[in-house]
Amino acid sequence: MRNELMGMLEARKDEMIQIRRYLHEYPELSFEEEKTAQYIIDFYKGKDVEIETEVGNGHGIVVTIKGDKPGKTIGLRADFDALPIVEETDVPFKSKNEGVMHACGHDAHTAYLLVLADCLIQLKSSLAGTVKIIHQHAEEKPPGGAKSMVESGILDDLDHVFGVHLFPTEPAGTVGYRSGYAMAGRASFSLSIQGSGGHGSSPHLANDPIVAGAHFVTAAQTIISRRLNPFETGVFTIGSFDGKGTPNVIKDRIELAGDVRYMNDETEQVISREIHRMVKGLEMEFGVACELNYEPDYPPLYNDPEMTDFVRTTLERADDPEIQQIVEFPQLSGSEDFAYYTRKTPGCFFYIGCKPKGVEKAYFNHHPKFDIDEEALLVAAKSVGQVVCSYFEEK
Amino acid sequence: MRNELMGMLEARKDEMIQIRRYLHEYPELSFEEEKTAQYIIDFYKGKDVEIETEVGNGHGIVVTIKGDKPGKTIGLRADFDALPIVEETDVPFKSKNEGVMHACGHDAHTAYLLVLADCLIQLKSSLAGTVKIIHQHAEEKPPGGAKSMVESGILDDLDHVFGVHLFPTEPAGTVGYRSGYAMAGRASFSLSIQGSGGHGSSPHLANDPIVAGAHFVTAAQTIISRRLNPFETGVFTIGSFDGKGTPNVIKDRIELAGDVRYMNDETEQVISREIHRMVKGLEMEFGVACELNYEPDYPPLYNDPEMTDFVRTTLERADDPEIQQIVEFPQLSGSEDFAYYTRKTPGCFFYIGCKPKGVEKAYFNHHPKFDIDEEALLVAAKSVGQVVCSYFEEK
Amino acid sequence: MRNELMGMLEARKDEMIQIRRYLHEYPELSFEEEKTAQYIIDFYKGKDVEIETEVGNGHGIVVTIKGDKPGKTIGLRADFDALPIVEETDVPFKSKNEGVMHACGHDAHTAYLLVLADCLIQLKSSLAGTVKIIHQHAEEKPPGGAKSMVESGILDDLDHVFGVHLFPTEPAGTVGYRSGYAMAGRASFSLSIQGSGGHGSSPHLANDPIVAGAHFVTAAQTIISRRLNPFETGVFTIGSFDGKGTPNVIKDRIELAGDVRYMNDETEQVISREIHRMVKGLEMEFGVACELNYEPDYPPLYNDPEMTDFVRTTLERADDPEIQQIVEFPQLSGSEDFAYYTRKTPGCFFYIGCKPKGVEKAYFNHHPKFDIDEEALLVAAKSVGQVVCSYFEEK
Amino acid sequence: MRNELMGMLEARKDEMIQIRRYLHEYPELSFEEEKTAQYIIDFYKGKDVEIETEVGNGHGIVVTIKGDKPGKTIGLRADFDALPIVEETDVPFKSKNEGVMHACGHDAHTAYLLVLADCLIQLKSSLAGTVKIIHQHAEEKPPGGAKSMVESGILDDLDHVFGVHLFPTEPAGTVGYRSGYAMAGRASFSLSIQGSGGHGSSPHLANDPIVAGAHFVTAAQTIISRRLNPFETGVFTIGSFDGKGTPNVIKDRIELAGDVRYMNDETEQVISREIHRMVKGLEMEFGVACELNYEPDYPPLYNDPEMTDFVRTTLERADDPEIQQIVEFPQLSGSEDFAYYTRKTPGCFFYIGCKPKGVEKAYFNHHPKFDIDEEALLVAAKSVGQVVCSYFEEK
Repeated sequence: MRNELMGMLEARKDEMIQIRRYLHEYPELSFEEEKTAQYIIDFYKGKDVEIETEVGNGHGIVVTIKGDKPGKTIGLRADFDALPIVEETDVPFKSKNEGVMHACGHDAHTAYLLVLADCLIQLKSSLAGTVKIIHQHAEEKPPGGAKSMVESGILDDLDHVFGVHLFPTEPAGTVGYRSGYAMAGRASFSLSIQGSGGHGSSPHLANDPIVAGAHFVTAAQTIISRRLNPFETGVFTIGSFDGKGTPNVIKDRIELAGDVRYMNDETEQVISREIHRMVKGLEMEFGVACELNYEPDYPPLYNDPEMTDFVRTTLERADDPEIQQIVEFPQLSGSEDFAYYTRKTPGCFFYIGCKPKGVEKAYFNHHPKFDIDEEALLVAAKSVGQVVCSYFEEK
Repeated sequence: MRNELMGMLEARKDEMIQIRRYLHEYPELSFEEEKTAQYIIDFYKGKDVEIETEVGNGHGIVVTIKGDKPGKTIGLRADFDALPIVEETDVPFKSKNEGVMHACGHDAHTAYLLVLADCLIQLKSSLAGTVKIIHQHAEEKPPGGAKSMVESGILDDLDHVFGVHLFPTEPAGTVGYRSGYAMAGRASFSLSIQGSGGHGSSPHLANDPIVAGAHFVTAAQTIISRRLNPFETGVFTIGSFDGKGTPNVIKDRIELAGDVRYMNDETEQVISREIHRMVKGLEMEFGVACELNYEPDYPPLYNDPEMTDFVRTTLERADDPEIQQIVEFPQLSGSEDFAYYTRKTPGCFFYIGCKPKGVEKAYFNHHPKFDIDEEALLVAAKSVGQVVCSYFEEK
Repeated sequence: MRNELMGMLEARKDEMIQIRRYLHEYPELSFEEEKTAQYIIDFYKGKDVEIETEVGNGHGIVVTIKGDKPGKTIGLRADFDALPIVEETDVPFKSKNEGVMHACGHDAHTAYLLVLADCLIQLKSSLAGTVKIIHQHAEEKPPGGAKSMVESGILDDLDHVFGVHLFPTEPAGTVGYRSGYAMAGRASFSLSIQGSGGHGSSPHLANDPIVAGAHFVTAAQTIISRRLNPFETGVFTIGSFDGKGTPNVIKDRIELAGDVRYMNDETEQVISREIHRMVKGLEMEFGVACELNYEPDYPPLYNDPEMTDFVRTTLERADDPEIQQIVEFPQLSGSEDFAYYTRKTPGCFFYIGCKPKGVEKAYFNHHPKFDIDEEALLVAAKSVGQVVCSYFEEK
Repeated sequence: MRNELMGMLEARKDEMIQIRRYLHEYPELSFEEEKTAQYIIDFYKGKDVEIETEVGNGHGIVVTIKGDKPGKTIGLRADFDALPIVEETDVPFKSKNEGVMHACGHDAHTAYLLVLADCLIQLKSSLAGTVKIIHQHAEEKPPGGAKSMVESGILDDLDHVFGVHLFPTEPAGTVGYRSGYAMAGRASFSLSIQGSGGHGSSPHLANDPIVAGAHFVTAAQTIISRRLNPFETGVFTIGSFDGKGTPNVIKDRIELAGDVRYMNDETEQVISREIHRMVKGLEMEFGVACELNYEPDYPPLYNDPEMTDFVRTTLERADDPEIQQIVEFPQLSGSEDFAYYTRKTPGCFFYIGCKPKGVEKAYFNHHPKFDIDEEALLVAAKSVGQVVCSYFEEK
């Protein structure tokens, strides 16, 4: 089956590219991917699969490919939402939805997976198990689509789960992996500090929230510097200190907001506990009234070491001209809601190099000029295809 | 001459009120008091005075009343600009210039002084000296009108100078005085802190100006707490911390702004020196680039002790039914550009109670509901009149 | 009586000096002034007075001189304790009690008052009222002697009370006065911050009290900079931050201690309230356990304006060659337990210049080289004498 | 040779224990290990080795065992100094040098290595290469002995180097390893802050170094929280804030001291750069004069991944009843001057479990009650012996 699959994918490389370009031209924002979802549904029309739509809290789609032989069940996931960014590339298939752009490669994720899925459908007779194709909406916008798709129960029977992401630091042909905690968890918070306004010349008749807020910013540094295990990773950024006012007037209220990163749940718990405590202390210390909204969104993404090893060895042994190099990646501070799948089901999320040819340093994901080497589509399809083949052979 | 003057003022009380109401109805912003100035000029038309217009950096007017007998020269000053406030009273003569309001009593200052000036003109034959009536524009908006009127040279020949301000904490009939430093000097500043923006999850690749700004706010408290003589008065308020941004993005630059108060020049110098030094330290400490604009505007107002004593004794001895009580005022944290006159010429600036009848606590100057007891106009006119009479008798 | 008294004082100038030198040679610490008290008691032996000893919480002495004519009752107070200072002068009557020194002039206070008291005893027949001579112990060491002497009830019948202090900024012949709040009130505090010790390389397993203490020092600056009326005087000094330890060990506990000054009770209340609140906030913010001991000791010294005016006018009119100049003093940041007398009984505490001749800038009180111009003794005696005479004449 | 060596070690287990107990009884402080060095030298007396003494900056000893066959050269290192700790155990061989204790296991390191060395000497005829036994002084006290022994040149010919440390978190029989950066680098610093002393009630006449110091502590938290790559490890602890003083006196000068940890040189450079910059900023910001002594001592310990893999595989394959379990260790925040050897020569430093039997949680190294399971000596000898055998077979 492996050779057959690889041959089919090679033959349909152009089709992947066409699909990707079409999706690129018609991007849709998270939770609003109506036409994209319809496009995917239409793709599977008439094929011998079960298809479930509107899965989870949006336009999620699960396509079940049941092999003719009995076996395990795996999930393959690609996300399909785009970003609120005005595209600044000059590709001929540039976004036609002004202000919306596939600047994170989800168009490519979906394109390769559609073609791979179709090939697997055609190879059902050789398939010793079940493959669930997970077309996921709304990865870019918390609470994301993954959590609700997991909670739908439709994926409860998965034995393992896999997914990939395009990554422009490496050229097409390079595949990256990271065992264990691989991508950061994230929480965001807002903090409003209510003092009591007054004239700048009479501070004793007011209660200055800017002074209280400044002490909070200063004191909160200790959450990272003193409360975390120095061998763990945590970030606490106050990105917004909204205290604009009149020079000689003491403000009544200010608003802070920020972002938290961590590589495991324990770190998240420490930061959460400390920020809540610190805000209570601030209220007492400066006599202000605070309102803290602290909300974790995506958890840290954990790649099962066994599955990661399995992916790495599979690709190393593949001896495929397209898959030229397998490299270990560092931990990344970005977040991914694929984390929700591996919280429930062991799996591995890995990286497909896509740096455009002839470029020294590529524009990164989310940049208005983000672009890819479309060779990466075939690399993605073949890499995941290899994993599928080895999985049903070995596991 | 004293009795004659007092009688004339009593007789023209209603006229003062009418003038005040007219001015109240047609307020004009600082430096834009074209019609008000014309109204004043018209008032003096045909009277036996020298009149100079467009004095200083705006619509300032100086009217010289030369007595028939030789003697000293004094200045009497009233300001005539209004504030950018939407009036919220329901007096019948409410502002007809939407968004502009005589919320500080300058209408009353001008009204009483016009009538007093006219009376003095009529009593020129008894006047043993010269009175310069100073109708000043733009008190409310730094750099103000006073400084430039003083610098015009027209007032170089003054021996002493007097002025009053309506004050709604005391009822009409009460006159307040304060010897020495009576009202605060003021400086304002803006501080921009240039860091280096970046992603919230990678603080080491950015330089967070919010953290630097918070440390500045915190450290700057020591200017007041540790650098000032505890027996001196100083205020350092950061009224604006403009660091609004996106929670997970480290900002590139933030802007702070604030206000400084002091009761004498030495304190101002300490604060100015320390804020400049602290900003330099901040640049080094956090590797940010700062731009500090620190600008003193009005100096502390100093009432000559001898002249203040003279005003107090004059009014105490006046035995006038309108001037019921002479009280010492505390130092005030408000600022006044009358300070520029007494920097050059010894003088006294004193307070005329104007609390509306039947009110427990009056709306303060600059409040949209600021209102006065119009009896205060006669009190002002008589008080200043008494001072003029005693001055030419005694000095 | 006035002339007679002045003559007697002039004649006994040397005696005052001898007494002062004797006391200077045998100084005793606060609450340990056994021999000094005995010396004073012996001085009055055989004289026609009532004498009460061991008044209050130590060696306080009250001597009652009842005039032959009826009248009011006044108190005259001098303190007699010394300081734990190693004297560094080379006067021939240098302290013989190593480590103890009359470095604040209490020797002089006692000397002049003994002689003045003796003169008044001799003039009893002319005295229209009662004079209580208050020889007070332990002024230098809180809780001081004054509070307990007042609480003893022995002084309940005083109509007014007077006292003086030698002051080396002015030459002998100059007398200083200050109406209203004249000297600062004072509180002291200690704060222990209990964290949890540990190895310097594992901050997350410890709770660093040095970091918490540093935040307290920083935050507490706002008590002065933001909570006080800028026209009021307050000082908050943390004089001790006892956190000595090993570089790579996180301490378990640190101790802070400091000093608070204020010119009126309201300011004291604000500071007390804020420090207590801030410590509670600190406990919450950093998870430390704090123990705060905050103890006001001497209240602000308030000179009754009427009595201060009376003293000033009396001395101005005295036309005495010894009393050359009467000057207004600024408010002083030093504290005095004389404050307790004027809390109960209106009075005035004033200053006697004592700058040594030929010295540009004298060593200040409490300096190991503190020295006085002994002419000041006669000035003190005559000034207080003048006040006594005028009092019984006028009041 | 392997079987022979293992048999010899088993047979001499008691001897190792006796040597260890002897050394434990007579501990000597770093750089003062005269008798211990002599004991070691005596041990080799008459054996067929080259021995060099007083190597480096102290009592370092290098013993060269030249095999009869040609081959590579490896180093085996054990340290032999003790700590200034009062022993609190009740073992029969408790320290006889009051206040000095082998509380880190160096006695055991030396004991096993002496016996292993002696066995290797006896097996010289089978040895295909050279083993240099490095008996190192002064590991506990920077600058340590390792750096100078490396610089002596005597070890220039090493191809690889190995060492072990006893570790009481794991039982005897467990061996731990960590590839790459395994133990922290360390720097220490002292900072004196010179302000200007004065009376607590007059902060404006002084310059309070406690306030400046508190701001430094607060600001320095940002070195860790904002300047480090969140995926890197760094610790900045201020263990000493020596600002003890009198509550109402502003101190002249305070002294801070602290400790820095990092897992690679880049992190050290960031921390060093930032602390130097921050101190310069502090000087400007608060007008104080600072003296910073910042001194890195031991660098991070880097285990060569290839050598670590070699050690791990060797021990896994050994199938030795004493070596029961090979576990990966986390990175450790402790420091080791073994780091200097692997800076020059690739090698591996690994851990020998020594938790006393029947104890749930053992006292950690450096604790006055630190104790070991002496079975660990044979484990250490055999583990290092296995590595030696495999090395000369495979490398």
